Amino acid sequence: MNRDNKSKFIVIEGLEGAGKSSAISLVGDFIEKHIGQAPVCTREPGGTPLAERIRDLVKIADDSDPLCDEAECLLLYAARAQLVANVIKPALERGDWVLGDRHNLSSLAYQGGGRGLMTLVNVVSQATLGDFKPDLTIYLDIDPELGLQRAANRGELDRIEKQALDFFERARATFLSLAADDDSIAVIDASQTMAEVHKDILALLQSQEW
Amino acid sequence: MNRDNKSKFIVIEGLEGAGKSSAISLVGDFIEKHIGQAPVCTREPGGTPLAERIRDLVKIADDSDPLCDEAECLLLYAARAQLVANVIKPALERGDWVLGDRHNLSSLAYQGGGRGLMTLVNVVSQATLGDFKPDLTIYLDIDPELGLQRAANRGELDRIEKQALDFFERARATFLSLAADDDSIAVIDASQTMAEVHKDILALLQSQEW
Repeated sequence: MNRDNKSKFIVIEGLEGAGKSSAISLVGDFIEKHIGQAPVCTREPGGTPLAERIRDLVKIADDSDPLCDEAECLLLYAARAQLVANVIKPALERGDWVLGDRHNLSSLAYQGGGRGLMTLVNVVSQATLGDFKPDLTIYLDIDPELGLQRAANRGELDRIEKQALDFFERARATFLSLAADDDSIAVIDASQTMAEVHKDILALLQSQEW
Repeated sequence: MNRDNKSKFIVIEGLEGAGKSSAISLVGDFIEKHIGQAPVCTREPGGTPLAERIRDLVKIADDSDPLCDEAECLLLYAARAQLVANVIKPALERGDWVLGDRHNLSSLAYQGGGRGLMTLVNVVSQATLGDFKPDLTIYLDIDPELGLQRAANRGELDRIEKQALDFFERARATFLSLAADDDSIAVIDASQTMAEVHKDILALLQSQEW
């Protein structure tokens, strides 16, 4: 990929109820002020017409044909491959910034850590993405019990949000462990008040050498 | 998987227009006579409600969001993982025979050979299927030019059938090369008359030690 320009790919990650939506709004505004143009916003799974159809398959439970863990993982990577090829890479190549609601780290945490499919996730991730990765990932860390309470207050939970608590605890442990080994992943304490979380995110963004 | 019983998984493979449908009908009748019960019939991609929805995503072209090769490959394996987990393995475990219209060999030939994604296909195949494979695969070999003529006579071609001829030539070469290395794959000359093809298939079935 041609990335001679200064475009950046920034991703917000976090368990359900961690406050991703308001963080995305904050980071989007920051980018718009910083470069004078709104970023291309993506969400995963989804973000292209076909990837959105894949999202539906992953989100909706069908008790007559329960989605097996391997198929879930492969569907998520199919959607991601499509989004990277048709949206993210073209945007970065034309010099746009991209702001992602979730990306590969979610699969490592949920499917790798949560489902115990780390081998499958790693081989598929390497084979489809190679060394393509976000310039910065902001991981909003929250205790899953608190996050799920917040998510439940928002309304109906989807198939993923209905997983048992220990699934999210394994996912959180994986998020934290991968963040500890990767300088491009910043951990923000999302159990704080929204004002404090936003202050931490802005300080992080201002500290970047962009 | 518990396979103490004598159930078998038989797959028919071949390029478009090779005569898979009539071969499946012939083999299905043979199995029914042999074990006194019709086999569970599957088709790939598809064969479960969710896998059929994945099939639609693979078969239908969307020019506004063209399916990238990696996503195509992962969608096919997602559908296959779902079919194996929810249909094929349960059937074999209860002692039923399974007759498949395509299986993993198609991905090796079309996505591995045809699209040049053999590394991705191999790692995903190994990670999702492990050593699970058909007891017998009948590959109906035909020159792609002849096969596509026959397929076109049947009606509208789908997204895969509209690929250029050299895509199918690479797929055919991969089918033949993999068959040469695997005793469980039998090659039948599908350029013969249907009567001759069926005679060869029956001779093959009768030669099995079942």
